[in-house]
Parts: sequence; structure tokens; C-alpha cells
Amino acid sequence: MPRIAYVNGRYTRHAEAAVHIEDRGYQFADGVYEVFAVYEGRLIDEGPHLDRLARSLGELRIPWPMEREALRVVIGETVRRNRLSFGTIYLQVTRGVARRLHAFPHHPAPALVIAAQRMNRPRREDFETGVTVITIPDNRWDRCDIKSVALLANVLGKQRAIDAGAYEAWYVDGAGQITEGTSSNAWIVTKAGAIVTHPLGPEILGGVTRQAIIAEARNLQIEVRETPFTKADIAAAAEAFLTSSSAFVKPVISVDGVAVGAGRPGPVSRRLHARYLETLKTDGETA
Amino acid sequence: MPRIAYVNGRYTRHAEAAVHIEDRGYQFADGVYEVFAVYEGRLIDEGPHLDRLARSLGELRIPWPMEREALRVVIGETVRRNRLSFGTIYLQVTRGVARRLHAFPHHPAPALVIAAQRMNRPRREDFETGVTVITIPDNRWDRCDIKSVALLANVLGKQRAIDAGAYEAWYVDGAGQITEGTSSNAWIVTKAGAIVTHPLGPEILGGVTRQAIIAEARNLQIEVRETPFTKADIAAAAEAFLTSSSAFVKPVISVDGVAVGAGRPGPVSRRLHARYLETLKTDGETA
Repeated sequence: MPRIAYVNGRYTRHAEAAVHIEDRGYQFADGVYEVFAVYEGRLIDEGPHLDRLARSLGELRIPWPMEREALRVVIGETVRRNRLSFGTIYLQVTRGVARRLHAFPHHPAPALVIAAQRMNRPRREDFETGVTVITIPDNRWDRCDIKSVALLANVLGKQRAIDAGAYEAWYVDGAGQITEGTSSNAWIVTKAGAIVTHPLGPEILGGVTRQAIIAEARNLQIEVRETPFTKADIAAAAEAFLTSSSAFVKPVISVDGVAVGAGRPGPVSRRLHARYLETLKTDGETA
Repeated sequence: MPRIAYVNGRYTRHAEAAVHIEDRGYQFADGVYEVFAVYEGRLIDEGPHLDRLARSLGELRIPWPMEREALRVVIGETVRRNRLSFGTIYLQVTRGVARRLHAFPHHPAPALVIAAQRMNRPRREDFETGVTVITIPDNRWDRCDIKSVALLANVLGKQRAIDAGAYEAWYVDGAGQITEGTSSNAWIVTKAGAIVTHPLGPEILGGVTRQAIIAEARNLQIEVRETPFTKADIAAAAEAFLTSSSAFVKPVISVDGVAVGAGRPGPVSRRLHARYLETLKTDGETA
């Protein structure tokens, strides 16, 4: 069955899905995106992702490409046409095609692309194998709260991790505080059992899975601290983990080559992961 | 005559020129670009632009899409097919199409897009009318020396200028120093007649026209200082101007609503502009 993408009003074969060379997403990174997990055919956290899309578009003054309810229909139709059981839906909105000038076009016609990516059903062990992390200086711009496609710094950061044999790189700001990963939020678990992650603000993306984990932790009576942490705090931590909409919860077993806690996935990370997988099986909207 | 673009091996009508939705330029701003001025059919400063392209590609570890000499042929052919007398050639190279993952693909096939933009023959007065500038905080990443398409911060900065009724916005760093404009380099002329601009480094793009102006100034026995300047230095300056490959030299008559010097284009800016226009008429390579 061919892979289908939605591009500016048409469903098309993925291999032929194209945008104009003067789409401002291509020439200026003038656009935003969302990645939705699809689990057993259900679109996970559709509402929070669309809320975040609304915020990103608003911050950049990009008009919605269509009404929110219509967008939900198109997303659902893309899931259906791809018979997607497990995988992701990638959605990108840009300020559209215009003659190349930095300033906003007077009459923008936003571009909308929705693509599906199939994956195998996740196995429990995929998420219980710990991953390794390096730290790198946070060299990005000052609006990391906008989920824009201006991801070049994140690409270079992720590649640094790969080159170092690690799974992810965590950004360290000028004050020595961990902000987030190149494509995930960063967490530690203190020896007292509290989970700690950077507070919302322009320094980090407000992760949808980050919010879901905060809610799950509170349900589980786990203390949540939204406060910055440092490498020293990692050294003193019992566990660490990262979260994203496609990676879910991944235990982090070492940072910069130094074992975190016992150097293996810890009980709090595993509990949160298991609980999160449960919500994927019961929550979410059938697309 | 139709406008023609070159896209990944083919000359095509501009209106139909397209790239795949998974081109990493579109999803990650994982690419670089150059804008060449075309003046009387001649491609201006082709060598320095291609040198800078080489540097940008090298910094991002993106392979050349073709040999440099072949690239020169394609650029020249694009000028010819568009019968371009005055205007610009826009050239973009990205890391190409790959499944969406932040890290570099193992076997990148770089994408190459070359587009032409026709303009009217510039009139001398277009460049002698002064423009106005505002200042804004420099909120960009720390590798502004790479001419990447991750231009969202620049887009937002330019739009702030437009919203304020200005032509350009100059970035001010944490130390109060002007780094550069959103799409141009920034200069002042001291009362003693020296021209001053931010030194090369990760804070600014090494402008091709910036380098040309430094050379012209030296030919004219004008002192050149590559050193940062502040808003206080602007207040004490005789003149200000900006440079870019498409704007050439533009006198700046006010910054944040305060007149620079006499509040009109000054003699040094005009002299450099006139001299630069002369070089456009005599230098450059016939494409």
C-alpha cells in the first residue's frame, strides 16, 4: 500500500509529495510543526498538540491553514489512508509561498503538510533499555518555546551525540543548568524520589509528553519539581530519563560517560514509562 | 518568457519548481544559501560567494552537490535561460531528502536549487535615498557566521523593523555592541572619517559586499576599523550605512528614530556607494 501524504489540499503519494522552492519553510525556516504518536491506530494527545500548534502559530503570526476541526479531519484521514497502527504523524505549517523577502508577505497563504511514518509496534524492552546522553553548550536562539522548523542547531547537537556514541545531547546554559535535549525533555529523579525538570519558559519547548508525565507522576504521588538542575545534580541523582512524543519515556543510564545512579534503568523511570504506556492503550482518540 | 529554476538536475519552470516534503531544508533548516547580484548580465563576486558556500557547507558537513566548476556552469546557464540583466541568483544547498530524523543521514544526497529573480536596472537615486534602522536584541544562535537557511530569527527581526516603519533592524548583543542587521552588515563613519564595522567571528556573517567595501575603502585611503561599535558610537558618528549583496551600500539616516550625523546620506557613504557601483560595471564575470 502506498504511503500517502497530505500537501496543500491534496492527498498524494508520499514519494511525490512536494512543496514549492519558494515556500518560506524552505528558504527561511518560517514555519512550525508537530509530531503526533499513533498507537494502536489512536492519535495520542491530539488536543494538546493542536493547542501547542496554535501557540506556535500565534507567536509567529502565521494564520491557521484551515479551521482546527477541519485540520482534525485531515489528520484523521491521513492516519486512515496510511492504515497507520503504530508510528507518527508529522504536521508542518509554514507561512507559504512568496517572493523571497525576509519580511512577512502581505497576504500569506499558509502551507500545510501532513505525513505519516509507520513503525513497528513498540516492544516493552525498547523502552526499558537505557540510553546514554552527552551534554553540550546551549547555543540556540532565545525562543525555544516555539516549535519551529529552524532546527539546525538541534540537528548539529544530535549529530554530536551520535558522533560520541550517545543517543541524545542535553543542552547546558550559561548558568550550568540543563535546559532540555535536542529533541526531548530532560529529567532526573532525586535520591528522595522527586522528579525534576526545567520549568516552562523561552528556554525549552513545552513538551506534550512532559506535561503528560507530570500529570501521571502526580497521580502516582510522585513529587514533581519544575526547577532547573545542573550536572552536579545529575551526579547526585538516583535516576535520569528523557521524554518525547515519539520516544515516550527513556531511562538515561549515563551522562558524559558517568553512570547515573546505579547505571541502569531505575524504578521511578520504569514506573512512569509503564504507566504512560497504559495511558496510550486507554486514552487517545481514535483517528 | 517563463522564469526558469534549476532543481536537482533539471531546469524547470519556476512556478513548478518543487522539492520533496522530506527535504531536510524544509523540515530542519538543514541547508545553506547564497544570493548573487546580477548587474548588466554579469554575476557579481561569484568567486567570494562560492568560497563562502564552501565554508558554510564545510561547517555543516554537507557534501557539495556537484563540483565547483560544474556549479558555475549551472549558475551561468540559469542566468542565461532567464535572460537576466539585473536581479539576483538565489542558490540553496541542503542535506537532501531523508527519513525525518535529526541526525545526519548516513548517505546524504544534497539538494541543489538555483532560482533567478529579475529586477529593474537600479537607479542611482535608489541607493542615495537614506533608510532608517531600529535596534533589537540579538537573540540568534551562536553560529551566525554560517549562511544557513535557519533564518526565522532574522525574519522576525526584519518584520519588527517593518512594523516600526523602518527598513532594517540592527542586532545589539549583551554587551551593547551592534553585531549586524537581519540581512545586511552594519557600519558607521566616525567624525574623523574612519569606517567601522563588527569584526568577523561567529557573531556575524562574513558579507561578500562587506569585504568588497573594505577593499574599496582602502583603495580610497579611508581608514577601516573592524571593531564593535555601540549605540553611543552611533550617536557620535558622522554617518552610518549598511551593505549587502542585493542592497549594495545604503546610507542609514536614523537609528531608533534619532538622526545619524546630519540626518541625510553623508559623503563617505555616497562615495563608497558610487565607487562600488563602478566596480559592478567593470568587475564581475560574464555569466
